[in-house]
Amino acid sequence: MFISFEGIDGCGKSTQARLLAESLRTDGRDVLLTREPGGSPGAEEIRRLLVEGAGERWSPETECLLFTAARRDHLERAIRPALAEGRVVVTDRFADSTRVYQGAARGDLRGLVDDLHRLMIAVEPDRTFVIDIDPATALARGAARGGSEDRFESLGLGFQQRLADGFRALAGEYPGRVRLIDGSGTPDEVALRVRAAL
Amino acid sequence: MFISFEGIDGCGKSTQARLLAESLRTDGRDVLLTREPGGSPGAEEIRRLLVEGAGERWSPETECLLFTAARRDHLERAIRPALAEGRVVVTDRFADSTRVYQGAARGDLRGLVDDLHRLMIAVEPDRTFVIDIDPATALARGAARGGSEDRFESLGLGFQQRLADGFRALAGEYPGRVRLIDGSGTPDEVALRVRAAL
Repeated sequence: MFISFEGIDGCGKSTQARLLAESLRTDGRDVLLTREPGGSPGAEEIRRLLVEGAGERWSPETECLLFTAARRDHLERAIRPALAEGRVVVTDRFADSTRVYQGAARGDLRGLVDDLHRLMIAVEPDRTFVIDIDPATALARGAARGGSEDRFESLGLGFQQRLADGFRALAGEYPGRVRLIDGSGTPDEVALRVRAAL
Repeated sequence: MFISFEGIDGCGKSTQARLLAESLRTDGRDVLLTREPGGSPGAEEIRRLLVEGAGERWSPETECLLFTAARRDHLERAIRPALAEGRVVVTDRFADSTRVYQGAARGDLRGLVDDLHRLMIAVEPDRTFVIDIDPATALARGAARGGSEDRFESLGLGFQQRLADGFRALAGEYPGRVRLIDGSGTPDEVALRVRAAL
């Protein structure tokens, strides 16, 4: 079982990924909790190039290639080995993030994103939860968190709004796989909605 | 005019790229002398991930993606602007290196390399010089040079031999663009052969 969490920065998906992993472990499952970009030593090094620095540091096309390189390493060296051992994989972001961030919100590159995905990744999660939240609330949470990983947040509220729209559209595009989860309320309330949807 | 130099590590292509750039400048041309992986600030950061560390640090597929990301940045931010200003671009390595290193010598990935190139780069130099030299001699030169950028040299003589064969085959595959240059003798002797072929 391969599960991904998606949504804009500050929507609470990292918390929800962790809560689901804990809940599955309580049920006796062996769970790999991981994240993108990153999740393997090589991919974490690529992550630094992607999430730090100026917003226009990379073109959307170069960014796609770097995310796909990180994802390929993560898939080969963490996700596939875990699934082969019968473990449950819960990841904070996967290919849907590239579809939305580079394919819709930054450049109109969805065709390119799809071609690259087909060529180099060609795997989808069994189930994806999009944590849906008001972009202004999410941006404020991200800013409160601080740290240097603010490259995408620095692109502003209009950008966050396009991202939120893009993530909602995924639920319509992949109705069998993607579930939209109301992200309002406490983390435990959201976690109950995730468990119910699973 | 966009010119690339190709060949195995230690074949003398960096020296030849520099000598050709100097010779063209003496003729009054405005020349950008550059290199791959690298040649732009972002691509130089990706370079460190590629040329340092253990030989098996990346799979051939992930490596292709990282080289293509670096090349896309180099093309957008250095090569295309220079050509648009009417400058001559001389680069130490370009897409042929990926064709040979990842497409032939490391994995049997030539089809994937070609698909990625078509999708993300789609540009060839006007003229390419492959500096042809005995792999054992080249490997000894590379070892003498020292430094930390020895990831590909660390893959051994059999690997260097497959690379040399791959570079020779390019001349047959792209007869209009690629010229094989005898790399024996002094740098000045080789430079005369390059100028004659240009």
